[in-house]
Amino acid sequence: MEYRDCLKKVSPYVPGKSEEEIKELYCLNEVYKLASNENPYGPTQKIKEATDKLLYSLYPDNYVTNLRNMLSKKYDLDKDMFLFGNGSVEIIQMLSRIMLDQGDNIITELPSFSSYFSEAKIQDSQIKTINFNDKYSFCLSEMISLIDNNTKMIYITNPNNPLGTIISKDEMLDFLKLVPSDILVVVDEAYGEFVRDNKFESAINYIKEYSNVCVLKTFSKAYGLAALRIGYIVADKSVINELEKVRVPFNVSTISQNIAQIALQDEEHMKYAVKQIHDSIDYMYDELEKRGIEYIKTQANFIMINTKMDSKKVVQELIRRGYIVRDGFPLMDTWIRVSIGTLEQMKGFTKKLCEVIL
Amino acid sequence: MEYRDCLKKVSPYVPGKSEEEIKELYCLNEVYKLASNENPYGPTQKIKEATDKLLYSLYPDNYVTNLRNMLSKKYDLDKDMFLFGNGSVEIIQMLSRIMLDQGDNIITELPSFSSYFSEAKIQDSQIKTINFNDKYSFCLSEMISLIDNNTKMIYITNPNNPLGTIISKDEMLDFLKLVPSDILVVVDEAYGEFVRDNKFESAINYIKEYSNVCVLKTFSKAYGLAALRIGYIVADKSVINELEKVRVPFNVSTISQNIAQIALQDEEHMKYAVKQIHDSIDYMYDELEKRGIEYIKTQANFIMINTKMDSKKVVQELIRRGYIVRDGFPLMDTWIRVSIGTLEQMKGFTKKLCEVIL
Repeated sequence: MEYRDCLKKVSPYVPGKSEEEIKELYCLNEVYKLASNENPYGPTQKIKEATDKLLYSLYPDNYVTNLRNMLSKKYDLDKDMFLFGNGSVEIIQMLSRIMLDQGDNIITELPSFSSYFSEAKIQDSQIKTINFNDKYSFCLSEMISLIDNNTKMIYITNPNNPLGTIISKDEMLDFLKLVPSDILVVVDEAYGEFVRDNKFESAINYIKEYSNVCVLKTFSKAYGLAALRIGYIVADKSVINELEKVRVPFNVSTISQNIAQIALQDEEHMKYAVKQIHDSIDYMYDELEKRGIEYIKTQANFIMINTKMDSKKVVQELIRRGYIVRDGFPLMDTWIRVSIGTLEQMKGFTKKLCEVIL
Repeated sequence: MEYRDCLKKVSPYVPGKSEEEIKELYCLNEVYKLASNENPYGPTQKIKEATDKLLYSLYPDNYVTNLRNMLSKKYDLDKDMFLFGNGSVEIIQMLSRIMLDQGDNIITELPSFSSYFSEAKIQDSQIKTINFNDKYSFCLSEMISLIDNNTKMIYITNPNNPLGTIISKDEMLDFLKLVPSDILVVVDEAYGEFVRDNKFESAINYIKEYSNVCVLKTFSKAYGLAALRIGYIVADKSVINELEKVRVPFNVSTISQNIAQIALQDEEHMKYAVKQIHDSIDYMYDELEKRGIEYIKTQANFIMINTKMDSKKVVQELIRRGYIVRDGFPLMDTWIRVSIGTLEQMKGFTKKLCEVIL
């Protein structure tokens, strides 16, 4: 078979190892997955009612009407400024499919989410990146100087994954003023609910002024619904109209639509989970500082730690001890990314980390 | 914004109207959706156990391991010959993304499933079609004469949607012998479980001999799980490897994976539902013949009926009476497609149909 040429440069996504795999491999009874920035407090318990009533055999509502109405009220934005995906990663795919052709390019941060890269490559497009500064954050003005006639999209993850640092409101607005209006600026706020720094503001507030700005949101993180696959984009209607052309029909399951609504109604549970995560982060700051271990202050639900050793080996040793964490980020060979679990899990993790790196 | 040029030729998918919309519009208490070939008997009741145990906050198994193992045993095929999608429609998207570039073309039947067309257009590719013959079936040899140097894929829906007719085993094998081995032949067997004609055979049996053949299957029809969005492809490993490059991570939700397993374990329920559908079809044959209404003998869970009137108007009148059915199929201006509901629903439908067209 003659596959598309540009696929020669694309590799499949490699997820973190599962708890089951590690239990079997190392004969462990307890394994903690702190590798994928999930929420250890899960979603609201109120979701249970949704599964019994579900009409399994009927196709989902193709327009996600009820959840759309709720979000339209929540943000006070028109209903046609939303589009839903099978996780926000599916929307990244759709964005690439409406914007990118052979010879086009995108600009993004390095490191950032791998799907920005793979989806651009699948469209036979190029990728330009800016590196982090000495504060582990990014100077967006560097992106401006990378823009050329073939630049179609800019991805900014705010807070950045894996660094956990933010772009402030002022920096973002200064940047948006300089971006040509025909370049789509995608701000991925998957971790926005975890931010404590008041210099952060959601870019959803800028869409009315800058119709080339759009924002990705997900129910997988703060709302604890990673298993269900549901995310959304907020954008100008003209962008949504184009995305609708490449969206496969019925891409969000009925159960995901229903449970996301319930999760949105119980914001108290989400705020409780975020508060617990913050407590665990503060605990980690104390412990790491006490031991002189370098880390990056985080605005998300994960923390980057500098092991000052080959991170591959550290991850291997931690997994052997029952803690699955992530390494392999570009430019950060000695760093690991640890998702914030419960306080109990972080205590256990810190003990094992010290065993391995101190 | 400068969107991709080829999208000018693409329109979003338009689904059938929902029961809720119609209830409101026409002030009806009871509305029957017979428009999307769903299963009125639903899935097995054994699925209830799966929802309570679900770990909502963790990402799904990216490899769909357990369901993959079950299907590997069911078909006696290697585990790496399967790939799963958010409905089989997502796999049609992936197939287009690995095969089609600007200037390429696909060949398919007219009428057939609209996503073959839209996904080819999104890849800036052309579409060639063959028309049905006087038996409302297709001569695959006509496809052979349409093949040129830019032909990359051939889609065959077996049984065809919306016609409900099949390609026999002999016709399919004669055809496969003539197709160049570098053209991917996609046989969509979404409705395969409903076939009663013993001249039909699943093309899954031909993949070992013809590595350019692949088969699409779904849990949305006979297994009654349209709400959950899960389908799969069976193909040679080399095709699966390429599909993995364009698959978005975690594209099948945990609940869909778990419930599909349970559905597969309770084949008795599926066979019960299929048997009921067959009884409803036989009832329809009798009623339609008695009244001299033209129809096409069906091997699927829907039936094409020639209203000999403008089908748009007939659909409008049926909807007003509480029965949602589908029209608008190319070359079939007077026909409507009616999904097979329960016997009770079909009795009610037949009465209303006679009111409208006789």
